[in-house]
Amino acid sequence: MKLWSMPSSGNSYKVRLLLALLGRECEIIDVEDSSPELAEAKAAGQLPFGKAPVLKLDDGRLLPESNAILCWLGEGTSFVPADPFLRSRMLAWMFWEQNQHEAVIAVRGALRSYPSRRHLATPERMAELLERGHALLQVMEDRLAGHDWLVGDAISLADICLYGYTHTAGSKGGFDMARFPGIMRWLDRIAALPGYRGLTA
Amino acid sequence: MKLWSMPSSGNSYKVRLLLALLGRECEIIDVEDSSPELAEAKAAGQLPFGKAPVLKLDDGRLLPESNAILCWLGEGTSFVPADPFLRSRMLAWMFWEQNQHEAVIAVRGALRSYPSRRHLATPERMAELLERGHALLQVMEDRLAGHDWLVGDAISLADICLYGYTHTAGSKGGFDMARFPGIMRWLDRIAALPGYRGLTA
Repeated sequence: MKLWSMPSSGNSYKVRLLLALLGRECEIIDVEDSSPELAEAKAAGQLPFGKAPVLKLDDGRLLPESNAILCWLGEGTSFVPADPFLRSRMLAWMFWEQNQHEAVIAVRGALRSYPSRRHLATPERMAELLERGHALLQVMEDRLAGHDWLVGDAISLADICLYGYTHTAGSKGGFDMARFPGIMRWLDRIAALPGYRGLTA
Repeated sequence: MKLWSMPSSGNSYKVRLLLALLGRECEIIDVEDSSPELAEAKAAGQLPFGKAPVLKLDDGRLLPESNAILCWLGEGTSFVPADPFLRSRMLAWMFWEQNQHEAVIAVRGALRSYPSRRHLATPERMAELLERGHALLQVMEDRLAGHDWLVGDAISLADICLYGYTHTAGSKGGFDMARFPGIMRWLDRIAALPGYRGLTA
């Protein structure tokens, strides 16, 4: 297997994290927006939606979208609940992550981090993203205040998925994580898992 | 089963469409942003992420997120490919829909339709969304120019999911659909399915 992966992106990181937790070998090709390797892969038709991460199987088949890659790698492991309803609840968190959480938490971090996007970071926009982000983190807090994991009573792909951008929501996004003690304990729980790898590891 | 569903929303509509195609009975509770029924359901803890659609099973369990509801209803039907890789490719389109397509195609339509959002519809924003939307529709066109369906050689949840906001991309979003003949044929193919129901049906 081969993974086109963006070192700075939470979407790519969550795939690398699951690979590490599963102890799966995978060739990693680091790319950023300006990398020649990214343009090359795109020109060669290796990136179905034009962006990383993309997983290439040994037989050449290509799978885009971080959360679809998590589902592919997680199938048949303890990261996917056997119960069909819990599996649907897991997917619900993962769709919510792509539609709501990523669009606010990751975007605010990117506006603070990338010089090329700084002109979009108006005070109004940043204040609006801060408020919306705190409301989204509260949705996670409401669950994690009383439960160890997002779905059922075991870790699942929902946790790996949401960990991607939540664990840097304070440092990169500027969100006030002290408001969310349940999330903070959950972050520690994930970082203590055997095989865990940090974002830059 | 009971579905809190927003008549004007493509996310809610795709669930109603799958229910119709499967011939499944379901009590539908129509809600819009200002509906007392929505506030009531929210206050009663019936909307896990605070928004519609939400499916309530006969035993009281709640499932939010349109695409997770599609997966739940579609499991074991011909709308979910048996092959695990095709299933992952189906999910990839569905995550892409929530992260990319909905965030541009649906958002441009909402900015044109809802008076309360019209102050956000600056000429720069609308022009940017138009350009990004055409690029996203081109991704679908690249696939549908040479294939009947988005995944494999049969209809799947990916088609139902993307149909939700694509079939009103011209009328609501103002996108130039004449550029995308493959998409137009695919829209006709779906509207011709036995049991099909339109957005306002």
